[in-house]
Amino acid sequence: MGSIQVPESNVDVLIIGAGPSGLMAAAWMAHCGVKARIVDKRGTKVFCGQADGLQCRSLEIFDSLGFADRAWKEANHMIEICMWNPGNDGVIRRSDRIPDTIVGLSRFQQIVLQQGRIERFFLENIKKYSKDQIKVERGVLPESLEIDLSKVDDDAAYPVTVKLRHLSEEEATPPQVTNASKASDGLFRSNLVLEDDEEDLIRKSQARAGESEVVHAKYVIGCDGARSWTRRALGFELDGEATDFIWGVMDIIPITDFPDIRMRCAIHSADNGSLMVIPRENKLVRLYIQLKEVTPDASGRADRSKITPEIIFGAAQKILSPYKIDYEYCDWWTAYQIGQRVGTTFDAHNRVFLAGDAVHTHSPKAGQGMNVSMQDTYNLGWKIALAAKGIAKREILSTYQSERRRVAQDLIEFDHHFSRLFSGRPAKDVMDAEGVSMEEFKNAFVKGNMFASGLSVDYGASSLVVKAGDSLKQGDGSKVLQTVTAISEEDFEKKQSLASGLPVGMRFNSFKVLNQADARPWHFQERLKADGRFRVVLFAGNILNAAQKARVDKFCAALDAPGSFLHRATPPGAPIDSVIEVLTIHSSKRTDTELLSDFPAILHPLDTHTGWDYNKVFVDDESYHEGHGEAYKNYGVDRERGCVVVVRPDQYVAWIGELEDLDDLQKYFEGCLVLGKGGNNANDTNGVNRHENGTTLPIR
Amino acid sequence: MGSIQVPESNVDVLIIGAGPSGLMAAAWMAHCGVKARIVDKRGTKVFCGQADGLQCRSLEIFDSLGFADRAWKEANHMIEICMWNPGNDGVIRRSDRIPDTIVGLSRFQQIVLQQGRIERFFLENIKKYSKDQIKVERGVLPESLEIDLSKVDDDAAYPVTVKLRHLSEEEATPPQVTNASKASDGLFRSNLVLEDDEEDLIRKSQARAGESEVVHAKYVIGCDGARSWTRRALGFELDGEATDFIWGVMDIIPITDFPDIRMRCAIHSADNGSLMVIPRENKLVRLYIQLKEVTPDASGRADRSKITPEIIFGAAQKILSPYKIDYEYCDWWTAYQIGQRVGTTFDAHNRVFLAGDAVHTHSPKAGQGMNVSMQDTYNLGWKIALAAKGIAKREILSTYQSERRRVAQDLIEFDHHFSRLFSGRPAKDVMDAEGVSMEEFKNAFVKGNMFASGLSVDYGASSLVVKAGDSLKQGDGSKVLQTVTAISEEDFEKKQSLASGLPVGMRFNSFKVLNQADARPWHFQERLKADGRFRVVLFAGNILNAAQKARVDKFCAALDAPGSFLHRATPPGAPIDSVIEVLTIHSSKRTDTELLSDFPAILHPLDTHTGWDYNKVFVDDESYHEGHGEAYKNYGVDRERGCVVVVRPDQYVAWIGELEDLDDLQKYFEGCLVLGKGGNNANDTNGVNRHENGTTLPIR
Repeated sequence: MGSIQVPESNVDVLIIGAGPSGLMAAAWMAHCGVKARIVDKRGTKVFCGQADGLQCRSLEIFDSLGFADRAWKEANHMIEICMWNPGNDGVIRRSDRIPDTIVGLSRFQQIVLQQGRIERFFLENIKKYSKDQIKVERGVLPESLEIDLSKVDDDAAYPVTVKLRHLSEEEATPPQVTNASKASDGLFRSNLVLEDDEEDLIRKSQARAGESEVVHAKYVIGCDGARSWTRRALGFELDGEATDFIWGVMDIIPITDFPDIRMRCAIHSADNGSLMVIPRENKLVRLYIQLKEVTPDASGRADRSKITPEIIFGAAQKILSPYKIDYEYCDWWTAYQIGQRVGTTFDAHNRVFLAGDAVHTHSPKAGQGMNVSMQDTYNLGWKIALAAKGIAKREILSTYQSERRRVAQDLIEFDHHFSRLFSGRPAKDVMDAEGVSMEEFKNAFVKGNMFASGLSVDYGASSLVVKAGDSLKQGDGSKVLQTVTAISEEDFEKKQSLASGLPVGMRFNSFKVLNQADARPWHFQERLKADGRFRVVLFAGNILNAAQKARVDKFCAALDAPGSFLHRATPPGAPIDSVIEVLTIHSSKRTDTELLSDFPAILHPLDTHTGWDYNKVFVDDESYHEGHGEAYKNYGVDRERGCVVVVRPDQYVAWIGELEDLDDLQKYFEGCLVLGKGGNNANDTNGVNRHENGTTLPIR
Repeated sequence: MGSIQVPESNVDVLIIGAGPSGLMAAAWMAHCGVKARIVDKRGTKVFCGQADGLQCRSLEIFDSLGFADRAWKEANHMIEICMWNPGNDGVIRRSDRIPDTIVGLSRFQQIVLQQGRIERFFLENIKKYSKDQIKVERGVLPESLEIDLSKVDDDAAYPVTVKLRHLSEEEATPPQVTNASKASDGLFRSNLVLEDDEEDLIRKSQARAGESEVVHAKYVIGCDGARSWTRRALGFELDGEATDFIWGVMDIIPITDFPDIRMRCAIHSADNGSLMVIPRENKLVRLYIQLKEVTPDASGRADRSKITPEIIFGAAQKILSPYKIDYEYCDWWTAYQIGQRVGTTFDAHNRVFLAGDAVHTHSPKAGQGMNVSMQDTYNLGWKIALAAKGIAKREILSTYQSERRRVAQDLIEFDHHFSRLFSGRPAKDVMDAEGVSMEEFKNAFVKGNMFASGLSVDYGASSLVVKAGDSLKQGDGSKVLQTVTAISEEDFEKKQSLASGLPVGMRFNSFKVLNQADARPWHFQERLKADGRFRVVLFAGNILNAAQKARVDKFCAALDAPGSFLHRATPPGAPIDSVIEVLTIHSSKRTDTELLSDFPAILHPLDTHTGWDYNKVFVDDESYHEGHGEAYKNYGVDRERGCVVVVRPDQYVAWIGELEDLDDLQKYFEGCLVLGKGGNNANDTNGVNRHENGTTLPIR
């Protein structure tokens, strides 16, 4: 076959690995209209078991893509954590109840749903937004990867070359995961998780089995798991170590008299080890079971052949004693040795990137794995998409390692500490120095809960985040551009105080506001969709005050000037909100204000074909049916004077300033976007279609 | 072809017509596992225009089927109604704002979504729940219908014979609906309403084109619209009359300076007629426009050929003056003459039933058409399903006409009144007796809003609804069985006062309660799924009070006795909750009570394969994230003593009593269900698997 011509092709983005992390990257490409391919060596999806806790932040992200509601509906909702510890008599008892999600943190709470369903939501979402252009190509194996260093600084080049091989059906089918016997049909009443045929969501190229092809890519993202082929091809390492703690995992339908089997439970037995209960959908419960009697050998590795469901379940029964537990149906089981590792480098020349398990591993119990992995590519995807489209400067890509490696480092540090507390024997009394204090464990759990929400992430200063302080210390230590955006501690404090509830570097929190045009309440985050657009949020304050109205008018006039960043960021002929969308929240009474006459046209641009835009101006006012969001109060913004906030495409707060700080705002976008000349947009409100008060209208 | 054998087959239920009303009937059959077919003579679905307002009650019903969330997400939400009237100068101005849905009425509010999407949700739902068994058969025309009167009282018989003909593609394609030019692609940014291919949701039998077949059915439901073939086949009439009022309808994307174009508006101009604005999804707005210059001819019919989009839109522009309105894109338009008609008879021998437009027509503006039609079959479907399965007595079918014809009568009476007020010229002043008082119009609108929520429906006394009063007066005047359930005015007042917030005959209102086992908040209505089961809701009161606990224990012991209605209604070998589900709401503090030890096993039955049932006991307590539902307070139930409430499969309150009223409860079910001997159920808690305190457990 040596003489056969190997087909070659170009693609903007090649994604290797179609787990949640790779699918998230593909979703960004679909939502941003970027030409991309996603390949996976596995021939089929994994259907049961696997990571499945979903953090609040992951649900917020799903909502930005459009499918949080599906996960929310099908999942089991975890509401309360019960802590069980030995009493003086050594018998376990419930010692504490705490809310599973810290109250008020997010509009979502943590839920549990199997990974297969989440992958399904991604596949359908990618199909829809890419208009059938991006489909997972299963049974496709990367064989070589080369970066042409002479081209890495050329925006138009495809410097990464990957050779792919299309596997045959047998090659693509992984050895069967160890599994207990399947339950008989009819055991479940629920039919929530009917898996439809996925044929139209993937692209299995059996016709090309055995063939190879060469792909030239602008960017490659390696999301290929803990044994990442991409990482090895780059020669990158993971730093960290394994522990002696070995845990088993079982997904069963329990038959038990343990009272809290439908709660998330952390159970420390006196002498038999620890257990975590994670109730799941469809009557299933996941048990994480410490295996005290299985220890690593001299090489530091546990002999997995000695680990059986009988041994694992026996350990669970001992820990739960005197309560009884049994099962007829086991969906899946496995065992693992706790260890924490993080990659030394997350990218090569800002052209090839690693994400997810490929660059960090830790305990599954932390409920973080899938979440942090998806959040890696939620951070990376829009940056690559905007760079590939020529909208953003390629330099912003260096913020990926700075922002996400730091998150991984924080995560494994927490996991290291928490694993030891959870795997340790509970202290008998205050004198028992070798035992774990249950008070300390509870405190760690509460802290971990904040951490595990995904909402404690705070990105450091860079060209994308304007805040004071040392960007090296705030990130992972790697260098990032700050260009024009450096700011003094004192100046920053002033700016931050304009919106004290919106810390720069953290995700834009969500409160309810009303659409000015139709009075419908929205969680404001629902308006921050993952479409690759930056947002300028104008807190317009009290628009009925003449002085404030003058400030707003002046801000809008500058925004609407031909040389403004808004016009310069918009490609010629494109709608004015194509790259940067301006959203307004004002604080006057809704019924005392009118969209068309009280707000400058640039805040609700006219499209000559479809009329005014009725979805950009909101008000912080009482709703008829859903209460008062108190957005100004919760965002910490002055109701009279307001302020201006820039939000990144991934919903992180990027910049805060006064309505007069237009020069700084201009500089922010000059620092991260590729700005053109401006002044020639499809619905250019300086042009013939300007209608300040909505009284002049185009005629058919 | 005369010698070809015509194929014959039996089916439990044959549904004629696949609009929302027919699809609702099919959904019941799918959810209840009844063998059914649904045929429609049209070869394709109608894609644009058509009725599209959804009442709160319709959304509650969709939720009981499992797809309210999809409608809620895609629809436009109508929040506020603005009334516009001429001022003293004759110029229209906004005179009032009222909430579109009365605050606190339902957990849903009224929304707008095109019928095509709603039909799509039904098709997918029917496919899922019928496990692909029920699919709409398009291009199938009924040709004859016969009822064998000698068999109508035989439960096992198939007394209705319908001859069906399978049409060719051309025969099944209706003449194109009059339509303005389509907008070009790319006009919309939203891709919410991407219509996927529906091939797998319907069954087009082109292979059988031209063939005929004979179907023998136990029951036939005619949902075939205003010109119902079924109605004509039965020889039934509609009573009522047309008016002189002619209205046009247009779905456009408006370009306008009218301030309230995204609100629902009722506009009375001084001299140019009236207009209603209904904002829709995807920037569309529906305008209902009175055509004052088009009048009926001598025959009472308007000449539709004179009605053009130009004339209709010209009328709208005059009414809205001095505001300007224009459009480039029109999705659909039509015109109609207001008239109100209702069928004299809704069924033939309790074997063939008519529903929806086949038995009532009225103004589309009332926003009722599709809703009332769907609610007809939501009322009828479960009755037929349970009768066909031998679970319910066939006599309950006579409540369909009594309950729904009364609703239709009330509807056309309201519409008659409202249409005149809306189509009338506004009064110039209080002396202008011929003009319509705008105050009176507003009052009618507010009253109509209650009516239009679908929540004012109050079914009369029958064997399904135990209340005092004259069943003839409470219904449509037709006779219904009351059997053992008659109750005096005085006795009924006492019973009703046990749950004053749950009026017998009205739908079971919804408030949030927490699952005792996992603390998750649920709107209680979410637990009343449309699966054909009756529910006994035990308000257990304060279970921590010993006297009350004794009452609950006694009630449960009776419930669990072999001769109880619960055991007798359950088929041998079936789970104890197959026909009647017992749900509990208690009022003690959640954290002071334990599911397994404080509540008798019958309230959370054990399944030896899958453990205890953790989804039947709820508590009226504060949640962590979603406030306090105050269910006892809102249902008007005593927190200490509780009560017992029976809920029909369609969520209507059927019976209220004390915990001691078990004899009456038994009689209720004897009156409507076919009861067996009882005492031999799959998870019979009297049997070997009884575990009062959850301490004895079956061993694998």
